[in-house]
Amino acid sequence: MSMAYDQNNPFARILRGELPAKKVYENDKVLAFEDIDGKAPIHILIIPKAEVATANDLSDEHDAHIAAMFAAARQIAAGKGIAQNGYRLVINCNPQGGQSVYHLHMHLLGGRHMMWPPG
Amino acid sequence: MSMAYDQNNPFARILRGELPAKKVYENDKVLAFEDIDGKAPIHILIIPKAEVATANDLSDEHDAHIAAMFAAARQIAAGKGIAQNGYRLVINCNPQGGQSVYHLHMHLLGGRHMMWPPG
Repeated sequence: MSMAYDQNNPFARILRGELPAKKVYENDKVLAFEDIDGKAPIHILIIPKAEVATANDLSDEHDAHIAAMFAAARQIAAGKGIAQNGYRLVINCNPQGGQSVYHLHMHLLGGRHMMWPPG
Repeated sequence: MSMAYDQNNPFARILRGELPAKKVYENDKVLAFEDIDGKAPIHILIIPKAEVATANDLSDEHDAHIAAMFAAARQIAAGKGIAQNGYRLVINCNPQGGQSVYHLHMHLLGGRHMMWPPG
């Protein structure tokens, strides 16, 4: 079951330039910007430029977006100097996963030791 | 900088059938099995059938594996009945990310409300 995509979710508005964001990376497939409620010294959100509400709503047509999200994560981690020390990538899906904005997004957290379990 | 892949890491050995695992999903690109130290009622590891040590070591040649990992996550979540309630996907990279086995793997956690921050 897929979720209807709300054109007015905050990340859609960031993509349209209607809300501000501290952008750190952008290409034709993805945008990355700082989380406004960061939980680590480095906490970036990486979102696809596609109308995907949750991880459940991904399909074959988004393969290039998913690949681009991981390529962005690698480049951002390298650029921030945390690639070798390490970082954590997190995608929350639906309420029990902790998803708060229904535009698919990947959290990149680093700059400190991430603990276990992951929430 | 990429990390040398150790052919004798535990997940390589699981892929070769040299170590047991409770498999939950498999195709030509990925294998998924239960985490032996689960941190949620459902805690599955999804790994690519490719020699990739960390998220830093992904490249274009692995795009199909990454897509297959997400497709597996969706199918497993649906099969376990947690797709709509929700789940969390986590990839740890290198020591500060909490990576313990150096074969790329994605954690799928669900069956309880996941907390924030994610570790």
